[in-house]
Amino acid sequence: MNWMPDRNAKKAIYKQLAEFIEAGIADGTFPHDKPLPSERLLAKEYNLNRSTVVSAYDELESNGLIQRKRGSGTTINKDIWGITKKRIPSWNRYIEAGSILPNLPITQKIRKEVAEQKLINLASGELSEDLFPRDSLRGIGTNRSFVGSLGYDHPQGNVILRNTIAKHVIHDRKIEGTDASSILITSGAQQALHLVVQCLLKPGDAVAIENPSYSYSLPIFKSSGIRTYHLPVDKNGINPDDLVSLYKKHKIRMIFLNPSFQNPTGTSLSESRRKAILDISSEYGIPIVEDDPYSLTSFRGDEVNTLKSLDPHGNVLYISSLSKIVASGLRIGWIIGPNAVIERLTDAKQQIDFGHSSFTQWIANDFLDSEEFPAHINRLIVQLKKRRDQITKSLKYFLGDQVDFYVPEGGIHIWCKLRKEINEMKLLEESIKRGIIYVPGTTMGSEKGYVRFTYARENEENIHEGIKRFADAVQAAQE
Amino acid sequence: MNWMPDRNAKKAIYKQLAEFIEAGIADGTFPHDKPLPSERLLAKEYNLNRSTVVSAYDELESNGLIQRKRGSGTTINKDIWGITKKRIPSWNRYIEAGSILPNLPITQKIRKEVAEQKLINLASGELSEDLFPRDSLRGIGTNRSFVGSLGYDHPQGNVILRNTIAKHVIHDRKIEGTDASSILITSGAQQALHLVVQCLLKPGDAVAIENPSYSYSLPIFKSSGIRTYHLPVDKNGINPDDLVSLYKKHKIRMIFLNPSFQNPTGTSLSESRRKAILDISSEYGIPIVEDDPYSLTSFRGDEVNTLKSLDPHGNVLYISSLSKIVASGLRIGWIIGPNAVIERLTDAKQQIDFGHSSFTQWIANDFLDSEEFPAHINRLIVQLKKRRDQITKSLKYFLGDQVDFYVPEGGIHIWCKLRKEINEMKLLEESIKRGIIYVPGTTMGSEKGYVRFTYARENEENIHEGIKRFADAVQAAQE
Repeated sequence: MNWMPDRNAKKAIYKQLAEFIEAGIADGTFPHDKPLPSERLLAKEYNLNRSTVVSAYDELESNGLIQRKRGSGTTINKDIWGITKKRIPSWNRYIEAGSILPNLPITQKIRKEVAEQKLINLASGELSEDLFPRDSLRGIGTNRSFVGSLGYDHPQGNVILRNTIAKHVIHDRKIEGTDASSILITSGAQQALHLVVQCLLKPGDAVAIENPSYSYSLPIFKSSGIRTYHLPVDKNGINPDDLVSLYKKHKIRMIFLNPSFQNPTGTSLSESRRKAILDISSEYGIPIVEDDPYSLTSFRGDEVNTLKSLDPHGNVLYISSLSKIVASGLRIGWIIGPNAVIERLTDAKQQIDFGHSSFTQWIANDFLDSEEFPAHINRLIVQLKKRRDQITKSLKYFLGDQVDFYVPEGGIHIWCKLRKEINEMKLLEESIKRGIIYVPGTTMGSEKGYVRFTYARENEENIHEGIKRFADAVQAAQE
Repeated sequence: MNWMPDRNAKKAIYKQLAEFIEAGIADGTFPHDKPLPSERLLAKEYNLNRSTVVSAYDELESNGLIQRKRGSGTTINKDIWGITKKRIPSWNRYIEAGSILPNLPITQKIRKEVAEQKLINLASGELSEDLFPRDSLRGIGTNRSFVGSLGYDHPQGNVILRNTIAKHVIHDRKIEGTDASSILITSGAQQALHLVVQCLLKPGDAVAIENPSYSYSLPIFKSSGIRTYHLPVDKNGINPDDLVSLYKKHKIRMIFLNPSFQNPTGTSLSESRRKAILDISSEYGIPIVEDDPYSLTSFRGDEVNTLKSLDPHGNVLYISSLSKIVASGLRIGWIIGPNAVIERLTDAKQQIDFGHSSFTQWIANDFLDSEEFPAHINRLIVQLKKRRDQITKSLKYFLGDQVDFYVPEGGIHIWCKLRKEINEMKLLEESIKRGIIYVPGTTMGSEKGYVRFTYARENEENIHEGIKRFADAVQAAQE
């Protein structure tokens, strides 16, 4: 039995031993009609602690593979291997495998709490139902008949919708030169980000992300073996000098930025920094991935110059979606880039999900191409601004001397620093207990003591009540 | 300049050299204001053929990085590095990276030809538009108002739809014990397959797939570093003994089967083999992934016992979809399995695309839950059978003494062996020239001399004409 534990592996030794024994049962190394070696014997043979062997046998017993009885030693379970010979696959071991890593436990917890409880939800990064253009979207379904194909559409996305998006980004986002061939329709911005990482980067590559950022919370980089380096965000976004020094140290292969009303800080990269970053991108040939869900929501009414609109050289891959401005349930996002890149990503999307539903592309197209779209955006901005005003007012009222925050001028998030040190998990527990939930800052990569509130998901009354309860939780967590 | 070519790498030496020079330009190893080393000098310094250096400089020149002029040697391009200092990222190098490998060139070619030309399409594995229940689906959109949420739905899929699918698979596919918690809604069966591979297997794992099979054509296994071993398919499906010997040799971790009206052979795994394979799965603890797009389309009217319906131990992950029986443009598929597995896959789907569009889930639910669904399936079977009859008749008529095939008793594919040896690429070219397209067998893993025809995509007249043209192409390719 030529086996040795791998003492450098991440997997605990007892687990390695349990797997070795399980494999040995399967391949007949350990015959089904004979007792398994005693704990003492195994410990001696493989130079292990007795307690390690006990743990391995515990594991096999709880999986129903073996039985332990005083006097008769350890035997292979007859229910499984005896007359019936039935056994189920060890699903738990399969679940632990796989290249896509699970979400962070705290992200899973927040999602679970939101789904199962009636909480004031300042955690989910989305609009409330009443901010969606429900009547317009329903009207499209009801009044106009769907005449498109019910078969597989073009894997790059429906060409009518791509033309409408091209018109939209040229007109509303000043991204000149876009046409249908330079756009891929994705299932929200999320899928676009995944395609970029999985198609254009390889294990070991270094990338720069903002800190804090939504990117930080994504397991995709680690799943793909990408090294991430952080660019601190201040009230004018990241500092271009930081990018240069990161590049020189780590050969950064790509930069991921959310330059307008950033998630989670609500800040925007200043115009001069935008230009400086594009210059650096050109100088070193580093592509930029611009994630832009919010630039249409400026509260001051000024038009935002997206990085892509300032980029004549094609350095920027531009990602946006209808999720944060129309309806997340449509699952319509897109990425704009050089044709060769779009073709590569399209081929991968075809493999992954065989392209996008023709129905929702049709509804998205009809709405985006209508006069209802700009009217809707104007209404949305008014409502978001009211909620922004409410949350800043409530924060000052209930926590005036205990928090610091930037006032966001667009988007849906506000980022708060708690002045006193508070146990992050305790604060979250106390908040959930009081019926309010938010996102703890560390899931976005910050140090402890920060929280992200999303003010788009609840109305003003609930925002006020939510911050009141949060203030109580802060109190309780300090006790 | 401490560089050496890696002569064991897959990448051509000239490409390695070009990348080294490009990096050296970026980091200043090669100053922008000085000529680059001569070809002769580089060849000598790195012990390379002169022609390798020439190819490297050709590559850099075609990317616009360098200029070569008689007399003044090779210089770094001033347009890029001189006064403007502007440079675009080397997108071509990014496109070559990435863990998701591109589709096979021949698959890309077929897709391109189908999209660009008006061909008789016996290649695409889908129904023709007139086989979709267009009126019913449109009626749902027009007559009933969408009252669901426009926000993010449950990442596992809308719970109403999951309940309807549970009812459907219990009733129509005899899969007892299914409920909403054991189902994940996916973007077609394709996404379900990808999630299984990416979440439950790890690089180096061995899996068994049918040969020929649709699985063979998927780059996902290679992209994920999975080793695939083949189980030959005869007219009763795979042979259980083959599975045992593969398992003993290679420690197979998972089996991928399409047991009913298989793509591409049209054959079905016999009942006795189904049971034998389930026994083997239990004996060795190997999970089975059952891909079942077609089992509802039996032409003989007998109900098919899915593997999942014969599996009391939870060994089978069951994948199906509405793509091949209702409308592929809905992008509604699902996977059924143990709750722990479904939860793991759901977490990954949430990361990848944030769940499925609420609109199409609503339409799918209303149709699947209506009396129109069974009536539609009955009509579909009648039409598919007519087309199956047509293609077998046409094959006998035009190619009677030149081909062998099994007559499929369900599904949408027929698999033909050409008796004489014919150059596969030439036959495809001659066919496309004559306006007919199909899938060459080797893309599905078979040896040369096989072709797959899909008879669901064209009406009987076109099928007849298509096979006539194919017979001409066979003639021409032999000359």
